[in-house]
Amino acid sequence: MSADNLKQQIEFIKELDKLKSVYRQTMVKSENSRQENSAEHSWHIAMMATLLMDYAHKPVDIHRVVTMLLIHDIVEIDAGDAFVFDAEQVAGQEDKEIKAAERLFGLLPDCQRDYIMELWQEFEALETDDARFAKGIDCMQPLLLNMDNNGGSWAKHSISRAQVLRRNQYLETLAPELWEYALSQIDLAVEKGWLKP
Amino acid sequence: MSADNLKQQIEFIKELDKLKSVYRQTMVKSENSRQENSAEHSWHIAMMATLLMDYAHKPVDIHRVVTMLLIHDIVEIDAGDAFVFDAEQVAGQEDKEIKAAERLFGLLPDCQRDYIMELWQEFEALETDDARFAKGIDCMQPLLLNMDNNGGSWAKHSISRAQVLRRNQYLETLAPELWEYALSQIDLAVEKGWLKP
Repeated sequence: MSADNLKQQIEFIKELDKLKSVYRQTMVKSENSRQENSAEHSWHIAMMATLLMDYAHKPVDIHRVVTMLLIHDIVEIDAGDAFVFDAEQVAGQEDKEIKAAERLFGLLPDCQRDYIMELWQEFEALETDDARFAKGIDCMQPLLLNMDNNGGSWAKHSISRAQVLRRNQYLETLAPELWEYALSQIDLAVEKGWLKP
Repeated sequence: MSADNLKQQIEFIKELDKLKSVYRQTMVKSENSRQENSAEHSWHIAMMATLLMDYAHKPVDIHRVVTMLLIHDIVEIDAGDAFVFDAEQVAGQEDKEIKAAERLFGLLPDCQRDYIMELWQEFEALETDDARFAKGIDCMQPLLLNMDNNGGSWAKHSISRAQVLRRNQYLETLAPELWEYALSQIDLAVEKGWLKP
Protein backbone atom coordinates (compact mmCIF):
# COMPACT_ATOMS: atom_id res chain seq x y z
CA MET A 1 0.00 0.00 0.00
CA SER A 2 1.39 3.42 -0.96
CA ALA A 3 1.00 6.79 0.79
CA ASP A 4 -1.47 7.76 -1.96
CA ASN A 5 -3.56 4.69 -1.18
CA LEU A 6 -3.65 5.58 2.51
CA LYS A 7 -4.75 9.12 1.68
CA GLN A 8 -7.68 7.77 -0.35
CA GLN A 9 -8.63 5.26 2.34
CA ILE A 10 -8.60 7.94 5.07
CA GLU A 11 -10.81 10.13 2.87
CA PHE A 12 -13.30 7.27 2.51
CA ILE A 13 -13.20 6.47 6.25
CA LYS A 14 -13.96 10.13 7.06
CA GLU A 15 -16.83 10.07 4.54
CA LEU A 16 -18.30 7.03 6.34
CA ASP A 17 -19.00 9.27 9.35
CA LYS A 18 -22.04 10.55 7.40
CA LEU A 19 -23.86 7.19 7.68
CA LYS A 20 -24.41 8.06 11.36
CA SER A 21 -26.89 10.72 10.30
CA VAL A 22 -28.95 8.63 7.86
CA TYR A 23 -32.11 7.71 9.76
CA ARG A 24 -34.32 4.64 9.25
CA GLN A 25 -37.92 3.94 10.19
CA THR A 26 -37.01 1.46 12.94
CA MET A 27 -36.95 2.87 16.46
CA VAL A 28 -34.27 2.55 19.16
CA LYS A 29 -36.10 1.51 22.31
CA SER A 30 -33.36 2.41 24.78
CA GLU A 31 -33.60 6.08 23.92
CA ASN A 32 -37.25 7.02 24.09
CA SER A 33 -37.81 5.43 20.69
CA ARG A 34 -35.77 7.76 18.52
CA GLN A 35 -35.16 6.59 14.92
CA GLU A 36 -32.25 4.22 14.38
CA ASN A 37 -29.41 5.36 12.09
CA SER A 38 -27.88 3.15 9.42
CA ALA A 39 -24.41 3.00 11.03
CA GLU A 40 -25.64 1.57 14.34
CA HIS A 41 -28.07 -0.69 12.43
CA SER A 42 -25.11 -2.08 10.45
CA TRP A 43 -23.27 -2.86 13.69
CA HIS A 44 -26.33 -4.57 15.14
CA ILE A 45 -26.83 -6.88 12.16
CA ALA A 46 -23.10 -7.72 11.94
CA MET A 47 -23.42 -8.87 15.58
CA MET A 48 -26.61 -10.81 14.76
CA ALA A 49 -25.00 -12.67 11.86
CA THR A 50 -22.00 -13.56 14.06
CA LEU A 51 -24.30 -14.98 16.75
CA LEU A 52 -26.82 -16.73 14.47
CA MET A 53 -24.60 -18.18 11.71
CA ASP A 54 -25.01 -21.76 12.96
CA TYR A 55 -28.69 -21.66 11.97
CA ALA A 56 -27.76 -21.51 8.28
CA HIS A 57 -28.45 -24.93 6.74
CA LYS A 58 -26.01 -24.30 3.89
CA PRO A 59 -22.36 -23.35 4.37
CA VAL A 60 -21.95 -19.57 4.67
CA ASP A 61 -18.64 -17.72 4.92
CA ILE A 62 -19.26 -15.61 8.01
CA HIS A 63 -16.44 -13.17 7.28
CA ARG A 64 -17.92 -12.39 3.85
CA VAL A 65 -21.43 -12.14 5.38
CA VAL A 66 -20.24 -9.73 8.09
CA THR A 67 -18.33 -7.60 5.58
CA MET A 68 -21.43 -7.44 3.34
CA LEU A 69 -23.51 -6.30 6.30
CA LEU A 70 -20.94 -3.68 7.32
CA ILE A 71 -20.89 -2.16 3.81
CA HIS A 72 -24.45 -2.78 2.57
CA ASP A 73 -25.92 0.58 3.65
CA ILE A 74 -22.97 2.86 2.82
CA VAL A 75 -24.72 3.90 -0.41
CA GLU A 76 -27.38 5.57 1.76
CA ILE A 77 -24.90 8.38 2.48
CA ASP A 78 -25.84 9.70 -0.97
CA ALA A 79 -29.09 7.85 -1.72
CA GLY A 80 -30.81 8.11 1.68
CA ASP A 81 -32.81 5.31 3.29
CA ALA A 82 -35.98 4.22 1.48
CA PHE A 83 -38.65 2.71 3.75
CA VAL A 84 -38.98 -0.77 2.35
CA PHE A 85 -42.79 -0.81 2.59
CA ASP A 86 -43.18 2.54 0.75
CA ALA A 87 -43.43 1.71 -2.97
CA GLU A 88 -42.95 5.35 -3.99
CA GLN A 89 -39.71 5.66 -2.00
CA VAL A 90 -38.42 2.32 -3.27
CA ALA A 91 -39.01 3.21 -6.95
CA GLY A 92 -35.94 4.94 -8.31
CA GLN A 93 -33.89 3.95 -5.28
CA GLU A 94 -31.89 1.39 -7.28
CA ASP A 95 -30.54 4.01 -9.70
CA LYS A 96 -29.69 6.37 -6.86
CA GLU A 97 -27.82 3.60 -5.04
CA ILE A 98 -25.80 2.59 -8.09
CA LYS A 99 -24.68 6.19 -8.57
CA ALA A 100 -23.90 6.40 -4.85
CA ALA A 101 -21.82 3.21 -4.98
CA GLU A 102 -19.82 4.58 -7.89
CA ARG A 103 -19.03 7.85 -6.14
CA LEU A 104 -18.44 6.46 -2.64
CA PHE A 105 -16.55 3.24 -3.39
CA GLY A 106 -14.74 5.24 -6.10
CA LEU A 107 -13.00 7.19 -3.32
CA LEU A 108 -10.99 4.01 -2.54
CA PRO A 109 -7.83 2.74 -4.28
CA ASP A 110 -8.78 0.70 -7.37
CA CYS A 111 -8.30 -2.83 -5.99
CA GLN A 112 -10.24 -2.06 -2.83
CA ARG A 113 -12.97 -0.23 -4.76
CA ASP A 114 -13.45 -3.34 -6.92
CA TYR A 115 -13.57 -5.67 -3.92
CA ILE A 116 -16.14 -3.60 -2.01
CA MET A 117 -18.21 -2.88 -5.14
CA GLU A 118 -18.40 -6.58 -6.05
CA LEU A 119 -19.36 -7.55 -2.52
CA TRP A 120 -22.10 -4.89 -2.49
CA GLN A 121 -23.38 -6.06 -5.89
CA GLU A 122 -23.42 -9.65 -4.64
CA PHE A 123 -25.49 -8.57 -1.63
CA GLU A 124 -27.93 -6.70 -3.85
CA ALA A 125 -28.26 -9.56 -6.37
CA LEU A 126 -29.25 -12.10 -3.68
CA GLU A 127 -28.03 -15.03 -5.73
CA THR A 128 -25.46 -16.55 -3.36
CA ASP A 129 -26.12 -18.16 0.02
CA ASP A 130 -23.83 -15.60 1.69
CA ALA A 131 -25.91 -12.74 0.25
CA ARG A 132 -29.24 -14.38 1.09
CA PHE A 133 -28.21 -15.12 4.66
CA ALA A 134 -26.95 -11.53 5.07
CA LYS A 135 -30.22 -10.18 3.65
CA GLY A 136 -32.25 -12.48 5.92
CA ILE A 137 -30.47 -11.10 8.98
CA ASP A 138 -30.84 -7.51 7.71
CA CYS A 139 -34.63 -8.05 7.44
CA MET A 140 -34.97 -9.92 10.73
CA GLN A 141 -33.46 -7.15 12.87
CA PRO A 142 -36.35 -4.65 12.47
CA LEU A 143 -38.72 -7.51 13.34
CA LEU A 144 -36.93 -8.00 16.68
CA LEU A 145 -36.90 -4.26 17.40
CA ASN A 146 -40.55 -3.79 16.42
CA MET A 147 -41.64 -6.70 18.61
CA ASP A 148 -39.82 -5.05 21.50
CA ASN A 149 -41.35 -1.67 20.77
CA ASN A 150 -45.15 -2.16 20.60
CA GLY A 151 -45.05 -2.77 16.86
CA GLY A 152 -42.72 0.17 16.13
CA SER A 153 -42.56 1.12 12.44
CA TRP A 154 -45.13 -1.58 11.49
CA ALA A 155 -47.80 -0.09 13.74
CA LYS A 156 -46.89 3.47 12.78
CA HIS A 157 -47.27 2.76 9.04
CA SER A 158 -50.14 0.19 9.16
CA ILE A 159 -48.07 -2.62 7.65
CA SER A 160 -49.69 -6.01 6.94
CA ARG A 161 -48.73 -9.57 7.87
CA ALA A 162 -48.22 -10.45 4.18
CA GLN A 163 -45.75 -7.59 3.67
CA VAL A 164 -43.58 -8.69 6.60
CA LEU A 165 -43.77 -12.35 5.59
CA ARG A 166 -42.52 -11.48 2.11
CA ARG A 167 -39.73 -9.39 3.63
CA ASN A 168 -38.49 -12.32 5.74
CA GLN A 169 -38.72 -15.01 3.02
CA TYR A 170 -34.92 -15.25 2.63
CA LEU A 171 -34.68 -17.33 5.80
CA GLU A 172 -37.36 -19.90 4.88
CA THR A 173 -35.16 -22.60 3.34
CA LEU A 174 -31.75 -21.21 4.34
CA ALA A 175 -32.33 -20.96 8.10
CA PRO A 176 -35.65 -22.68 8.92
CA GLU A 177 -35.35 -22.24 12.72
CA LEU A 178 -35.00 -18.47 12.26
CA TRP A 179 -37.89 -18.50 9.79
CA GLU A 180 -40.07 -20.40 12.29
CA TYR A 181 -39.18 -17.88 14.98
CA ALA A 182 -39.99 -14.95 12.64
CA LEU A 183 -43.34 -16.57 11.76
CA SER A 184 -44.26 -16.97 15.43
CA GLN A 185 -43.44 -13.32 16.08
CA ILE A 186 -45.42 -12.13 13.05
CA ASP A 187 -48.46 -14.07 14.25
CA LEU A 188 -48.05 -12.60 17.72
CA ALA A 189 -47.84 -9.10 16.18
CA VAL A 190 -51.15 -9.69 14.36
CA GLU A 191 -52.71 -10.89 17.62
CA LYS A 192 -51.55 -7.74 19.39
CA GLY A 193 -52.88 -5.52 16.60
CA TRP A 194 -49.42 -4.28 15.52
CA LEU A 195 -49.73 -5.82 12.04
CA LYS A 196 -52.82 -5.90 9.83
CA PRO A 197 -54.04 -9.53 9.36
CA MET B 1 -28.70 -25.10 18.25
CA SER B 2 -31.84 -25.69 20.29
CA ALA B 3 -34.94 -23.52 20.69
CA ASP B 4 -33.66 -22.58 24.18
CA ASN B 5 -30.39 -21.39 22.67
CA LEU B 6 -32.24 -19.21 20.17
CA LYS B 7 -34.33 -17.68 22.94
CA GLN B 8 -31.16 -16.72 24.82
CA GLN B 9 -29.50 -15.34 21.70
CA ILE B 10 -32.55 -13.22 20.82
CA GLU B 11 -32.58 -11.85 24.37
CA PHE B 12 -28.92 -10.85 24.03
CA ILE B 13 -29.49 -9.31 20.57
CA LYS B 14 -32.35 -7.21 21.97
CA GLU B 15 -30.12 -6.14 24.89
CA LEU B 16 -27.49 -4.93 22.39
CA ASP B 17 -29.93 -2.21 21.29
CA LYS B 18 -28.88 -0.33 24.44
CA LEU B 19 -25.35 0.31 23.13
CA LYS B 20 -26.95 2.85 20.76
CA SER B 21 -27.58 5.14 23.71
CA VAL B 22 -24.10 4.98 25.29
CA TYR B 23 -22.41 8.23 24.28
CA ARG B 24 -18.68 8.87 23.86
CA GLN B 25 -16.65 12.08 23.90
CA THR B 26 -15.94 11.98 20.14
CA MET B 27 -18.21 14.10 17.98
CA VAL B 28 -20.12 13.16 14.80
CA LYS B 29 -19.35 15.91 12.30
CA SER B 30 -22.19 15.19 9.90
CA GLU B 31 -24.80 16.02 12.52
CA ASN B 32 -23.86 19.38 14.01
CA SER B 33 -21.22 17.65 16.12
CA ARG B 34 -23.43 15.59 18.39
CA GLN B 35 -21.63 12.96 20.52
CA GLU B 36 -20.96 9.61 18.87
CA ASN B 37 -22.54 6.50 20.39
CA SER B 38 -20.65 3.27 20.96
CA ALA B 39 -22.71 1.20 18.49
CA GLU B 40 -21.99 3.43 15.49
CA HIS B 41 -18.37 3.79 16.68
CA SER B 42 -18.05 -0.02 16.66
CA TRP B 43 -19.33 -0.14 13.08
CA HIS B 44 -16.91 2.59 12.00
CA ILE B 45 -13.83 0.84 13.43
CA ALA B 46 -14.89 -2.56 12.01
CA MET B 47 -14.93 -0.84 8.60
CA MET B 48 -11.55 0.80 9.30
CA ALA B 49 -9.91 -2.51 10.21
CA THR B 50 -11.33 -4.13 7.05
CA LEU B 51 -9.90 -1.34 4.89
CA LEU B 52 -6.53 -0.94 6.63
CA MET B 53 -5.56 -4.55 7.46
CA ASP B 54 -2.83 -4.64 4.79
CA TYR B 55 -0.81 -2.10 6.80
CA ALA B 56 -0.23 -4.65 9.56
CA HIS B 57 3.36 -5.88 9.32
CA LYS B 58 2.57 -9.08 11.17
CA PRO B 59 -0.14 -11.55 10.12
CA VAL B 60 -3.50 -10.62 11.62
CA ASP B 61 -6.70 -12.65 11.29
CA ILE B 62 -9.08 -9.98 10.04
CA HIS B 63 -12.22 -11.92 10.97
CA ARG B 64 -11.05 -12.18 14.60
CA VAL B 65 -10.04 -8.51 14.58
CA VAL B 66 -13.43 -7.40 13.22
CA THR B 67 -15.30 -9.59 15.72
CA MET B 68 -13.23 -8.13 18.58
CA LEU B 69 -14.08 -4.62 17.41
CA LEU B 70 -17.79 -5.45 17.09
CA ILE B 71 -17.94 -6.79 20.66
CA HIS B 72 -15.31 -4.69 22.48
CA ASP B 73 -17.69 -1.96 23.72
CA ILE B 74 -20.72 -4.12 24.62
CA VAL B 75 -19.70 -4.00 28.29
CA GLU B 76 -20.44 -0.25 28.20
CA ILE B 77 -24.17 -1.09 28.24
CA ASP B 78 -23.70 -1.65 31.98
CA ALA B 79 -20.38 0.09 32.69
CA GLY B 80 -20.82 3.25 30.61
CA ASP B 81 -18.08 4.87 28.53
CA ALA B 82 -15.09 6.23 30.46
CA PHE B 83 -13.29 9.10 28.71
CA VAL B 84 -9.82 7.64 28.22
CA PHE B 85 -8.03 10.87 29.20
CA ASP B 86 -9.99 11.24 32.46
CA ALA B 87 -8.02 9.35 35.14
CA GLU B 88 -10.90 9.52 37.62
CA GLN B 89 -13.36 7.96 35.16
CA VAL B 90 -10.87 5.29 34.13
CA ALA B 91 -10.14 4.20 37.73
CA GLY B 92 -12.63 1.53 38.72
CA GLN B 93 -13.76 1.07 35.11
CA GLU B 94 -12.02 -2.31 34.84
CA ASP B 95 -14.03 -3.84 37.69
CA LYS B 96 -17.28 -2.42 36.30
CA GLU B 97 -16.49 -3.85 32.86
CA ILE B 98 -15.69 -7.32 34.19
CA LYS B 99 -19.04 -7.40 36.02
CA ALA B 100 -20.75 -6.13 32.86
CA ALA B 101 -19.11 -8.84 30.73
CA GLU B 102 -20.29 -11.52 33.15
CA ARG B 103 -23.88 -10.32 33.10
CA LEU B 104 -24.15 -9.47 29.39
CA PHE B 105 -22.20 -12.34 27.80
CA GLY B 106 -23.85 -14.57 30.41
CA LEU B 107 -27.16 -14.03 28.60
CA LEU B 108 -25.81 -16.22 25.77
CA PRO B 109 -25.77 -20.04 25.54
CA ASP B 110 -22.66 -21.40 27.31
CA CYS B 111 -20.45 -22.14 24.30
CA GLN B 112 -21.11 -18.75 22.74
CA ARG B 113 -20.69 -16.97 26.07
CA ASP B 114 -17.23 -18.55 26.42
CA TYR B 115 -16.21 -17.64 22.85
CA ILE B 116 -17.26 -13.99 23.16
CA MET B 117 -15.85 -13.65 26.69
CA GLU B 118 -12.46 -15.04 25.64
CA LEU B 119 -12.30 -12.77 22.61
CA TRP B 120 -13.16 -9.75 24.77
CA GLN B 121 -10.54 -10.74 27.34
CA GLU B 122 -7.96 -11.15 24.55
CA PHE B 123 -8.77 -7.65 23.30
CA GLU B 124 -8.42 -6.21 26.79
CA ALA B 125 -5.14 -8.04 27.52
CA LEU B 126 -3.43 -6.63 24.38
CA GLU B 127 -1.00 -9.52 24.21
CA THR B 128 -1.74 -10.88 20.72
CA ASP B 129 -1.16 -9.12 17.39
CA ASP B 130 -4.89 -9.40 16.60
CA ALA B 131 -5.76 -7.57 19.83
CA ARG B 132 -3.05 -4.93 19.39
CA PHE B 133 -4.09 -4.20 15.81
CA ALA B 134 -7.74 -3.97 16.87
CA LYS B 135 -6.81 -1.62 19.72
CA GLY B 136 -4.66 0.49 17.38
CA ILE B 137 -7.62 0.96 15.04
CA ASP B 138 -9.97 1.70 17.96
CA CYS B 139 -7.61 4.49 19.10
CA MET B 140 -6.94 5.87 15.62
CA GLN B 141 -10.61 6.52 14.79
CA PRO B 142 -11.13 9.41 17.27
CA LEU B 143 -7.92 10.93 15.89
CA LEU B 144 -9.43 10.99 12.39
CA LEU B 145 -12.73 12.44 13.64
CA ASN B 146 -11.03 15.06 15.84
CA MET B 147 -8.81 16.18 12.95
CA ASP B 148 -11.96 16.63 10.86
CA ASN B 149 -13.73 18.50 13.63
CA ASN B 150 -11.43 21.37 14.72
CA GLY B 151 -9.79 19.23 17.40
CA GLY B 152 -13.10 17.83 18.70
CA SER B 153 -12.80 16.14 22.11
CA TRP B 154 -9.06 16.98 22.36
CA ALA B 155 -9.67 20.71 22.11
CA LYS B 156 -12.71 20.54 24.39
CA HIS B 157 -10.80 18.77 27.18
CA SER B 158 -7.34 20.42 26.70
CA ILE B 159 -5.58 17.15 25.86
CA SER B 160 -1.79 17.12 25.27
CA ARG B 161 0.36 15.74 22.44
CA ALA B 162 1.98 13.24 24.83
CA GLN B 163 -1.40 11.82 25.87
CA VAL B 164 -2.48 11.19 22.28
CA LEU B 165 0.92 9.75 21.33
CA ARG B 166 0.69 7.26 24.17
CA ARG B 167 -2.84 6.37 23.10
CA ASN B 168 -1.72 5.55 19.55
CA GLN B 169 1.42 3.57 20.49
CA TYR B 170 -0.10 0.21 19.50
CA LEU B 171 0.48 0.98 15.84
CA GLU B 172 4.18 1.95 16.13
CA THR B 173 5.79 -1.39 15.33
CA LEU B 174 2.68 -3.28 14.16
CA ALA B 175 1.57 -0.85 11.42
CA PRO B 176 4.35 1.75 10.94
CA GLU B 177 2.67 3.54 8.00
CA LEU B 178 -0.44 4.14 10.12
CA TRP B 179 1.75 5.25 13.03
CA GLU B 180 3.59 7.72 10.75
CA TYR B 181 0.25 9.07 9.55
CA ALA B 182 -1.01 9.42 13.13
CA LEU B 183 2.22 11.24 14.11
CA SER B 184 1.85 13.70 11.24
CA GLN B 185 -1.73 14.44 12.26
CA ILE B 186 -0.80 14.88 15.92
CA ASP B 187 1.89 17.40 14.94
CA LEU B 188 -0.60 19.22 12.74
CA ALA B 189 -3.07 19.32 15.66
CA VAL B 190 -0.42 20.93 17.89
CA GLU B 191 0.31 23.48 15.15
CA LYS B 192 -3.40 24.33 14.94
CA GLY B 193 -3.69 24.69 18.69
CA TRP B 194 -6.04 21.69 19.09
CA LEU B 195 -3.53 19.75 21.25
CA LYS B 196 -1.27 21.15 23.96
CA PRO B 197 2.42 20.83 22.92
